[in-house]
Amino acid sequence: MFEVSVKGDFSAAHFLRDYHGKCEKLHGHNWKVEVCVSGRTLDKCGMVIDFKELKDKLNRILCEFDHSFLNEISYFKKINPTSENIAEYIYKKLDKQISNKNLKVKKVSVWESEKSYATFLP
Amino acid sequence: MFEVSVKGDFSAAHFLRDYHGKCEKLHGHNWKVEVCVSGRTLDKCGMVIDFKELKDKLNRILCEFDHSFLNEISYFKKINPTSENIAEYIYKKLDKQISNKNLKVKKVSVWESEKSYATFLP
Amino acid sequence: MFEVSVKGDFSAAHFLRDYHGKCEKLHGHNWKVEVCVSGRTLDKCGMVIDFKELKDKLNRILCEFDHSFLNEISYFKKINPTSENIAEYIYKKLDKQISNKNLKVKKVSVWESEKSYATFLP
Repeated sequence: MFEVSVKGDFSAAHFLRDYHGKCEKLHGHNWKVEVCVSGRTLDKCGMVIDFKELKDKLNRILCEFDHSFLNEISYFKKINPTSENIAEYIYKKLDKQISNKNLKVKKVSVWESEKSYATFLP
Repeated sequence: MFEVSVKGDFSAAHFLRDYHGKCEKLHGHNWKVEVCVSGRTLDKCGMVIDFKELKDKLNRILCEFDHSFLNEISYFKKINPTSENIAEYIYKKLDKQISNKNLKVKKVSVWESEKSYATFLP
Repeated sequence: MFEVSVKGDFSAAHFLRDYHGKCEKLHGHNWKVEVCVSGRTLDKCGMVIDFKELKDKLNRILCEFDHSFLNEISYFKKINPTSENIAEYIYKKLDKQISNKNLKVKKVSVWESEKSYATFLP
């Protein structure tokens, strides 16, 4: 089994509803994102998926988030823009873009800071 | 499935008994620790567990280690304070503090240096 | 279950055959490598495997790659020196050197850059 992982990032504002603590205030982060795609075999070039192709797909997804106010994105109007929910949202968007049936989006991790991150595993 | 991971650190002295090599001498490290908690669902705020809550739990555990001589901690009087044993000890302490039945401490990793770490998985 | 992971690195040139894009040109990277060995129990010293022993094994393998032209290494004359194939090659070499039946090489990851890496899992 092989996996390919790439990282991206975005800077955004957010706050959490129904939360008591620092995160209820409007604030922001430099978020880091890592996505992992797995496959049982390699293509004839020796790749699971081209790093460049996966990075391009990820960066197109992160464009929506970069320099935005996450709470105003329609997906996050009803659910909080926590790292957990952001990871699941990125997973859903990326999974739709992986048309090769031999590949699987295995996990998506979202770092809110150097010391804390959440992962979504389908 | 979701996971939440947070990092902490401590600085401590140790040496290894029954070992032949550099680690038999009294020395020390800036250790890094990462703990991972998993859950199948999110709470109504959109979290597995609040990053702050998990960091607070971890930091309270690491307080015992920070600026200490690990071999003098009672747990390590009979077994060596290797990264493997430190990881298991942190797991046991953290697991007792996770009262929510839907959450599980999935792994604890302990870095002795930038290039070497051990992980305990229950 | 315990795991021990160590990191190494090498600098090498490579290019990809049957590929259209930047990687078809001769170029190079500072590669990073992480190997993970797992075991159900610890030895009497409290280790899965000594960090030093695992690092020495890894560094001996990476010697062949460091300051080399990967495409000229015999293993890569017929298959491309992608991160995926490099990871599998390192796995095969390391696995042969782990004689303890209680230990298993669980995964090998190869970073081509800070933001992209491939993993081989047996």
